Amino acid sequence: MAYSIEITQSTTRKQKPDPNHLIFGKHFTDHMFILDYSVEQGWYNPRIIPYQPITLDPAARVFHYGQTVFEGLKAYRTSEGRTLLFRPDQNFKRLNRSNVRMSIPELDEELAIEGLRKLVEIDQDWIPEVEGTSLYIRPFVIATQASLGVAPSHTYQFLIIMSPVGAYYAEGIHPVKIYVESDYVRTVKGGVGTAKTGGNYAASLKAQEEASGKGYSQVLWLDGVHHKYIEEVGSMNVFFKVNGTVITPELNGSILDGITRKSILELLASWNVPVEERTISIEELYEAHKNGTLEEAFGTGTAAVISPIGQLCWKDEEITLNGGETGELSAKLYDTLTGIQRGVLPDPFGWTMKL
Amino acid sequence: MAYSIEITQSTTRKQKPDPNHLIFGKHFTDHMFILDYSVEQGWYNPRIIPYQPITLDPAARVFHYGQTVFEGLKAYRTSEGRTLLFRPDQNFKRLNRSNVRMSIPELDEELAIEGLRKLVEIDQDWIPEVEGTSLYIRPFVIATQASLGVAPSHTYQFLIIMSPVGAYYAEGIHPVKIYVESDYVRTVKGGVGTAKTGGNYAASLKAQEEASGKGYSQVLWLDGVHHKYIEEVGSMNVFFKVNGTVITPELNGSILDGITRKSILELLASWNVPVEERTISIEELYEAHKNGTLEEAFGTGTAAVISPIGQLCWKDEEITLNGGETGELSAKLYDTLTGIQRGVLPDPFGWTMKL
Repeated sequence: MAYSIEITQSTTRKQKPDPNHLIFGKHFTDHMFILDYSVEQGWYNPRIIPYQPITLDPAARVFHYGQTVFEGLKAYRTSEGRTLLFRPDQNFKRLNRSNVRMSIPELDEELAIEGLRKLVEIDQDWIPEVEGTSLYIRPFVIATQASLGVAPSHTYQFLIIMSPVGAYYAEGIHPVKIYVESDYVRTVKGGVGTAKTGGNYAASLKAQEEASGKGYSQVLWLDGVHHKYIEEVGSMNVFFKVNGTVITPELNGSILDGITRKSILELLASWNVPVEERTISIEELYEAHKNGTLEEAFGTGTAAVISPIGQLCWKDEEITLNGGETGELSAKLYDTLTGIQRGVLPDPFGWTMKL
Repeated sequence: MAYSIEITQSTTRKQKPDPNHLIFGKHFTDHMFILDYSVEQGWYNPRIIPYQPITLDPAARVFHYGQTVFEGLKAYRTSEGRTLLFRPDQNFKRLNRSNVRMSIPELDEELAIEGLRKLVEIDQDWIPEVEGTSLYIRPFVIATQASLGVAPSHTYQFLIIMSPVGAYYAEGIHPVKIYVESDYVRTVKGGVGTAKTGGNYAASLKAQEEASGKGYSQVLWLDGVHHKYIEEVGSMNVFFKVNGTVITPELNGSILDGITRKSILELLASWNVPVEERTISIEELYEAHKNGTLEEAFGTGTAAVISPIGQLCWKDEEITLNGGETGELSAKLYDTLTGIQRGVLPDPFGWTMKL
């Protein structure tokens, strides 16, 4: 691969935050990667420059019509000082699927990975080494054309920024309380729910805010047609262990095709744990709880990896799962996945990419 | 009202585009209005400054989570040289309703109108005077907090920018061809379809692009649950005249509460034209066409005002309405509404605000 990525080193280096008290996504490293797009040139001018503000015309379409996509992945420092990326190829494949859905031109995945590798290398002293920490990586695309009128932009910027992070939830791996949302809807089949685009997240804020007000840390989304089938939890995929079988909503055209989700399905298959990817209703789940067969529940995503669910509240009926404790399988999945990600455990799947 | 709006005049003035060949939303005036928000200060520092780029941290939430709202309205120059705004109070009321839905703090509507009035006054020589032209006004709010994590931003900017425009559609008041979308969905009840937020428009791009490829200028959206009830056309509300009665989808929680829609309903009521705001299926519409009772159809919105529909294509069956010509009622509504907006006709409703 012979990509010519121009590098401009920052002349100053920022002070790094205390690795023992990292706040998710608050501090950013010294550099960022940028790639421009125009109809005439395609994607052009890949470069690494000092982390700096973006300057856009107020008419830039990102401000008006939400034409954006993003990704999230992490780099880890192993105890021997190696740097590992977790399945970056999957992220850039998904970025391109999101691009297609949002009428944004696809980009060269190899170039994106090369840009990411160079960026992490330059800012590698930003990867925190404290247990549970990592370098969160945020690739994103924004529509930059400075003209109104609802149509795909003619110009874009693709950027990668990076932030040293601790655990996503202040509570850590401890189980969280989840509110089952019966009124607000995240998205519906035929919409853009499968794309990692800003509007899906904006659409979730109000429900999240109201759930927080009731003392729940996330919302469990039901489908937009029947308000009864389970979709996602907050911005994570969701899994349930019922009577020994792990059940997760199938990729139905409205939920996100999570990379942690996919990795967990592959892990479970390798352990010969029975898994069902299928439609699952909230009634079925409550029924299983009544029968004593609902053993565990957890959300999965890059930020939190595994987020066990301690309580679910649906229509004023709160149920407690696994005594409110992290389940055995949840813990095993968390330990295995983070173990592979951090290079503590062997990686039989070839998921990690060494820098 | 004693709002203190600081004004910084631009030292240079841009060349104005040819008023006979205006492209929608391409050129912007010499100044813009800005208002900042922080949790500590609320909305603060209202000011008019030279039109200039916005500078934001790459982590600003608008780039990642689509937390935005916008509005669109127009200023007109009358033949006697007066400047008229059309129902600006309605726009800022709706902006605040959008804000509530998107977890953005509400702003002072009176201050927004005062800022808009001052801005139009300063840039009043930008209001084009050629028939059919106007000054398009775009108020919008963006989430500016520079940190990741899906939650409402702690800081925002509210801006108003303005652009001299001709007709929204190159075709003008001539009827357009519309493709009835059966797969893609704009939004669903419980979602953010009633809010004027970027994500709704981003979600429409793909369907719009595919319809354009088939030779249609806009998409007619069906509901996301049954894929059978009519919602909107492109980014406009939609009306049908069936057997002398005007039918438009009711405000059902997923369509936009259009100000042109509302004005048309008020106009029709004053003319004693029977109107029904209700659920209407695409089958019913095709049935009416077969019976010869589907007389006219048109979209309504600030940009195009009235956009007559000449053809509809649903599942490969294309029908032609009113011989592909602008209907009598469509034309009368267009002439009346634009007449009031331009001060050519009397304004018995008190819709126009004189600057």
